Amino acid sequence: MTNPEREFVTACHDDLRADLDAWLRIPSISADPAHAPDVARSAEWLAEALRRVGFPTVEIWPTPGAPAVYAEWPSGDPGAPVALVYGHHDVQPVDPLELWVHPPFEPTVVEGPDGPELHARGAIDDKGNVAMHLLGMRAHLAATGRDTPAVTVKLLVEGEEESGSRHFAALLAERRARLDCDVVVVSDTGMAAPDVPSAVVSMRGLAGAEITLRGPAVDLHSGSFGGAVPNPLHAMAELLASLHDEQGRVTLPGFYDKVRPLSDRERDLMARVPFDEQAWLAGPAAGSAAYGEAGFSTLERTGARPTAEVNGMWGGYQGPGHKTIIPAEAHAKISFRLVADQAPADIADQVRAWVDQRLPEGVTAEVLIGKAGVAPCASDLDSPGMAALRRAIAQAWDGDPDEVLYLREGGSGPEADLVEQLGAPLLFLGAGLPTDRIHSPNERVLLPMLHRGAEAAAHLWRELAGIPGRT
Amino acid sequence: MTNPEREFVTACHDDLRADLDAWLRIPSISADPAHAPDVARSAEWLAEALRRVGFPTVEIWPTPGAPAVYAEWPSGDPGAPVALVYGHHDVQPVDPLELWVHPPFEPTVVEGPDGPELHARGAIDDKGNVAMHLLGMRAHLAATGRDTPAVTVKLLVEGEEESGSRHFAALLAERRARLDCDVVVVSDTGMAAPDVPSAVVSMRGLAGAEITLRGPAVDLHSGSFGGAVPNPLHAMAELLASLHDEQGRVTLPGFYDKVRPLSDRERDLMARVPFDEQAWLAGPAAGSAAYGEAGFSTLERTGARPTAEVNGMWGGYQGPGHKTIIPAEAHAKISFRLVADQAPADIADQVRAWVDQRLPEGVTAEVLIGKAGVAPCASDLDSPGMAALRRAIAQAWDGDPDEVLYLREGGSGPEADLVEQLGAPLLFLGAGLPTDRIHSPNERVLLPMLHRGAEAAAHLWRELAGIPGRT
Repeated sequence: MTNPEREFVTACHDDLRADLDAWLRIPSISADPAHAPDVARSAEWLAEALRRVGFPTVEIWPTPGAPAVYAEWPSGDPGAPVALVYGHHDVQPVDPLELWVHPPFEPTVVEGPDGPELHARGAIDDKGNVAMHLLGMRAHLAATGRDTPAVTVKLLVEGEEESGSRHFAALLAERRARLDCDVVVVSDTGMAAPDVPSAVVSMRGLAGAEITLRGPAVDLHSGSFGGAVPNPLHAMAELLASLHDEQGRVTLPGFYDKVRPLSDRERDLMARVPFDEQAWLAGPAAGSAAYGEAGFSTLERTGARPTAEVNGMWGGYQGPGHKTIIPAEAHAKISFRLVADQAPADIADQVRAWVDQRLPEGVTAEVLIGKAGVAPCASDLDSPGMAALRRAIAQAWDGDPDEVLYLREGGSGPEADLVEQLGAPLLFLGAGLPTDRIHSPNERVLLPMLHRGAEAAAHLWRELAGIPGRT
Repeated sequence: MTNPEREFVTACHDDLRADLDAWLRIPSISADPAHAPDVARSAEWLAEALRRVGFPTVEIWPTPGAPAVYAEWPSGDPGAPVALVYGHHDVQPVDPLELWVHPPFEPTVVEGPDGPELHARGAIDDKGNVAMHLLGMRAHLAATGRDTPAVTVKLLVEGEEESGSRHFAALLAERRARLDCDVVVVSDTGMAAPDVPSAVVSMRGLAGAEITLRGPAVDLHSGSFGGAVPNPLHAMAELLASLHDEQGRVTLPGFYDKVRPLSDRERDLMARVPFDEQAWLAGPAAGSAAYGEAGFSTLERTGARPTAEVNGMWGGYQGPGHKTIIPAEAHAKISFRLVADQAPADIADQVRAWVDQRLPEGVTAEVLIGKAGVAPCASDLDSPGMAALRRAIAQAWDGDPDEVLYLREGGSGPEADLVEQLGAPLLFLGAGLPTDRIHSPNERVLLPMLHRGAEAAAHLWRELAGIPGRT
C-alpha cells in the first residue's frame, strides 16, 4: 500500500528538526513578564515559518497579554469543510533549573529506547505539536498533488496557554467571524504509547481557590500562648486533611452531584488502553505510588474522575533554625479538576460551604476564587469528524481505525472556550506521550511520534474533506 | 511603716527612665547578624551603667556569638550568701514593623489605664528587668546605709537569649569558678497582674523538630497525576492534623510518660492566680479563642502542661495566581514545650516514631531535630530562698508573704543551664505582665511595675542575707 504522505514526511525529517531547533531556542515563558519579548519573538518565528510553508494569510494577533498567531489556507474546493487547528507557542517555566540534564533552551537529541528523543522545554508542549502541522501541510499538498488543501485549514496558536489563557476567550469573541469552522483540531495532547494508535476524547475542567485562615491579630509567643489558643496552622492542616474522605473522595458538599457516572462501556474502553503503571511511576513521579479514589483505576482517576489537589500551603516561620511562634495566618492554594457535567462556577460556593463547616472557634477564613475556571470538554465519539480522525491516525500508526483507543486527558485548557465560542466539535490530534515530562525538568518529545503526527495531520486534511461542511 | 527602699526608688524614677531611654535605643537584635555591632554596643552600655552604680568588678565576656556582661559586688560580711542575677541584653526582631504604633527603638511613654507605659522593643524583655537591678542595688545600699551589699551580688547578662543562647552553656562551663553562688535570681519573667504579688516558680522546657516529606522526584502536573499519586502537602496536612487527638492531647508516643501530674494543691494554687481570660484574649491574641487540652484551665495549659505547636509549614506554589502542581516536598517546623520531668532528648525519638507510624505509601520523611533543647526547671517552694523572695515581693507590692501567688511560666530559657551548671536553686523576680506583648509589635513595660521591681530587688538582697550561705 503506497503512503505518499509518509514518503514525503520521511524525506523531510531534517526540516522538522531544523524548525524545532530554531523555535525551541526561544524561551517563550508566558508566566514570566521578563520573557515577554521572547514570547513575541516566538510568535514572529512561527508566523514566518507558516509563510514559508505557503499559508497565504498569516497574521499576528496582539492581545493585552501575549500575541497569538493566526494563519489561513482556503481550500480550492467549493463547500469544503473548515478545520481550525488550536495550539500554543508559549512554554512553562523551567525551574528548578538544576534538575535539567541539558539546558532547557538548547535542544538536544538523546538516543532513547524508543528512538531519538529531542530534549527541550516546549519540545512537545506545545511547539512539537504545532511544528508537526508545518510538515503535515506540506505532506498533504505534495501527496495529493493539490495547490490548496482539501479542507480550508485555519491555525490559531495562542501565546498564553501556560499562564492561564487569560485573554483567549476575549480574543475568540473579538475575532469570531474569522474563526468560523466546522471542526476544531486541538493539537496539545498525546497518545497512550509510541505504537498505540489512540486519541484523546476529553479534557478535564479546572477551578482554583486560595484559602487564608486567620487566628490571633499578630504572631504569638508559643511559650505564652501555645496550647491555649487555636493555631491557624493546625486549623489549616485539619482543614486540608479533611479535603478527602477515607475513600479518597473530595468532601466539598455537592462536588459529585453533576458528575456523569462512567458507563460499563466507557470503563471497558479505558481498560483497553495499554498502561504500564510501574513505568508511569518510574517517570517524573519516581518515588511515588499509585493512590487515589477507591474503586477506580489510575487512568480513570487521572482522566475521568474529578480531583482536588493542594498546590501550595504556607504560614509561620520558614527560615533557618526555629522561631517559636503561633503565626497569625495560614494559607493554601487548592485546584480542582472537573469532569462533565461539573461547572467551574459551582466550585466557589462549594469551597466556601466546606470551609465554613470546618472552622474552629477563634479562626476566621477568607476564600478567594481564582479566575473564571475552565469547563470540562469532550469529543462526540459518533461524529463523522471522529471517524476521519480515527482513519488518519490508523494510517499513520499502521493500525485499524476501529481499534483506535480513546484517551481521557487529565489536564485542562482553553479548549472549552473554543467549544463555547465557536460552537464546533472538538477533535484531538497530538503526538505527546505520558512519559514526556511536560511542565517538569527534561521535557522531551519522541521524534518518531512527531513524524507519525505530521503524517496523521496530512491524512486528516484529506479524510476531513468528506465530512459535512460549508454549504 | 517606713520603707526607705521605696523612698529611694521613688526619688530616682527619672534615673531609671534615663537609663532605659538610652539603652532601648540600641537595637540589640541577636538573631540578625547585621545587628552584631548593636549587641556589642548594648553590652558596653550596660557595663558602663554597672560601673556607675558602683560594682567594683565589671567585665565584658566575649563568646563565639554575642558578648555577655558580668559584674560582681562582694558583701563585706564574712560568710554572706552569694546571689547570681541572670538576665539578657539582646532583644527580639521587630518585624512586622508596620504594626508598631511607635518606632520600636524610640522609647515612648504612653499613659495607660494602669499608669505610664514605656513602649519599645526590649522594654520588659529583658532590658527593663535588668535595669531595675541598677536602681535596686542603689536603693539597697542607701536604705541600709551599707557600703557593700548584704549578700554578694553577681550579675550575668547574656547577649544571645533571643537567638537560642547558643554559647551560654559553654560560657557557664568556662567561667564556672567565677559564677559560684547559693541562689540564682532569674530576672526575665513577670507577675500575674499589676497589683498581685506573685512569682514565677517554673519554666517550661523546649524541643524543636523540622519535618520534610518527599513524594515524587519532581513537581508533577496536577492534570496528569492529580488524584492518582500521594500529594506530600496532603500527607503533611494529615500528619499535622494528627499532632493532637480529639482531647487536645499531643499524640507523640510516650510524650506524657514522664510528665508529673498536677497535685490538687498545685491546681488550687494556680486557680487562685487572678486571670482575666477575656482580657488575655483581647491582647496580642485578639481574634483568637481559649482552646486546648481538655480538662485543664488556660493557665494550666500555658504553664503546667506540655504542648506542641506547628511554628511554620510550607510547600508547593506560594506566588500570585495558581500553579497546578503536586509538589515534590512539604515542610513543617514544630516546637514542643516541656514540663518536669520531660527530657528534651527524648522528644527526637518520639517525633521519629510518630512520623513513621503515619507515613502513607509513596511518601518518605526526614526529621531534623533542633539544637539540644531546653530542660524544664522549677523553684523549690519550701526553701529559705523562696521565703526571702516572698517577703521581698510582699514588701514591694504591699502584700502578705504567705499570699504571694505562684506562677508557671510557659516560655523557656537558659535557666535550665544555670541549674545544671551551677547546681544552685532558682528564684524568679521579674516585673513583666502577661499583657506586655513580648516578642510582638508594641512591646511595653508598665513603669510602676519596674519601680516596684527595683524596690523588691533592694529588699531581696537584705532578706537573702539570712539564708544559709558561704561558710
